[in-house]
Amino acid sequence: MKNIEYIAFDADDTLWVNELYFYEFEQKFCTLMQPYLPADKVSQELFRTEMKNLHLYGYGIKGMMLCMVETICNIIAQKGESNRQGKEQTPPADEAGACIREVIRLGQELIEHPIELLDGVKETLSQLSKRYKLILITKGDLLDQERKVSKSGLKDYFHHIEILSDKQPEDYQRMMERLDCPPEKFLMIGNSVKSDILPVLQLNGYAVHIPYPITWQHEQHEEEVNHPYFLRLNKITEILHHL
Amino acid sequence: MKNIEYIAFDADDTLWVNELYFYEFEQKFCTLMQPYLPADKVSQELFRTEMKNLHLYGYGIKGMMLCMVETICNIIAQKGESNRQGKEQTPPADEAGACIREVIRLGQELIEHPIELLDGVKETLSQLSKRYKLILITKGDLLDQERKVSKSGLKDYFHHIEILSDKQPEDYQRMMERLDCPPEKFLMIGNSVKSDILPVLQLNGYAVHIPYPITWQHEQHEEEVNHPYFLRLNKITEILHHL
Repeated sequence: MKNIEYIAFDADDTLWVNELYFYEFEQKFCTLMQPYLPADKVSQELFRTEMKNLHLYGYGIKGMMLCMVETICNIIAQKGESNRQGKEQTPPADEAGACIREVIRLGQELIEHPIELLDGVKETLSQLSKRYKLILITKGDLLDQERKVSKSGLKDYFHHIEILSDKQPEDYQRMMERLDCPPEKFLMIGNSVKSDILPVLQLNGYAVHIPYPITWQHEQHEEEVNHPYFLRLNKITEILHHL
Repeated sequence: MKNIEYIAFDADDTLWVNELYFYEFEQKFCTLMQPYLPADKVSQELFRTEMKNLHLYGYGIKGMMLCMVETICNIIAQKGESNRQGKEQTPPADEAGACIREVIRLGQELIEHPIELLDGVKETLSQLSKRYKLILITKGDLLDQERKVSKSGLKDYFHHIEILSDKQPEDYQRMMERLDCPPEKFLMIGNSVKSDILPVLQLNGYAVHIPYPITWQHEQHEEEVNHPYFLRLNKITEILHHL
């Protein structure tokens, strides 16, 4: 990794905790819906709704909240249907309403959650920002990501912040062109093989994978990565020994 | 308006129809909730929820859908409360669920609504793009706005497209700095006095207001604008006679 000019960082689960909170939100959602459906079925039903709506809502908390609302309506409507067939008693009024109010409360709480930086992030950025131009590249809700960047206290380390609706190779390519940075001078660091690593390697940029214990099902990638410009690390601070 | 180098356009209700669809969505919402509350009260309740949540959700369709869902829950819970006080019969089960399902259906339909350009937009952009650098500046959901720009067929006229979470003077200032464009070479054209006109005049840029028949309550601005760099037009094509 010589001649690197720009180092780009993913944000969620690379610089700060994120997926854990989404995971906890989903666990609470499953518990909330347990009177109607076993937790694993609720989770499946939610994921199905999220995938159906991804092209409409994109990534982020608001889309997740809308998908949970839709999932509640579907599950309770199915339940109502089986009740009408005489299997069980009619459920009490406004069941869906009560669950949805709770989802909205939990979602709004998550939006306002404080930012918890991962170990070694601040020191690493502080070191690297003296020698390289640092970029932050994240996807999701615009306002939500802006708020997180601002609350993180890391804003001043970055030369440029880019919030994208998706992280496809063409999104990275457009950004490199705008920065006038050839791929061989570009290094991307992130926790998602699918979004942060493969698209950059495809363009012949450098990519460093720092796995995070939890990965959203949609971001999971099982295959091993083999590329001369690829490196896997355990902790963000380790990058300092490789540059 | 001499020496203009960059002409920036607002998108929604300046280049294409938008607020009308949101207005129709709200009308349908009020009709849906009429069994519980008169339409004007529903509308007030929705606006109150939108203002309460604006700092959490920002602008755009997903935030509006979530606010409608929350409003439904509140209205039906209040209704349930007054029922329990013995004033009326218990409502049938899953009332909130049925209304919310309809809101989600209508919202998803709106996200996929085709783009309808306003009169003269294409010709005006085509003319101006030969002599000026054109910019598109819009606020709202990232993915939703990207989709609209892409569906509009206008993308190629623009030198730069900027999707912001808000349009405050500092947002415009940052953008002018990035473009290396002094305010006196910058002209903004839009339908919202509050978001498109006043912040730009405050920075001493040029601003042209083209009113649209419907303005969202939150964007309304009653006071007259008095500034030497301000102009009001009826139609976008008229700008060609002023440059």
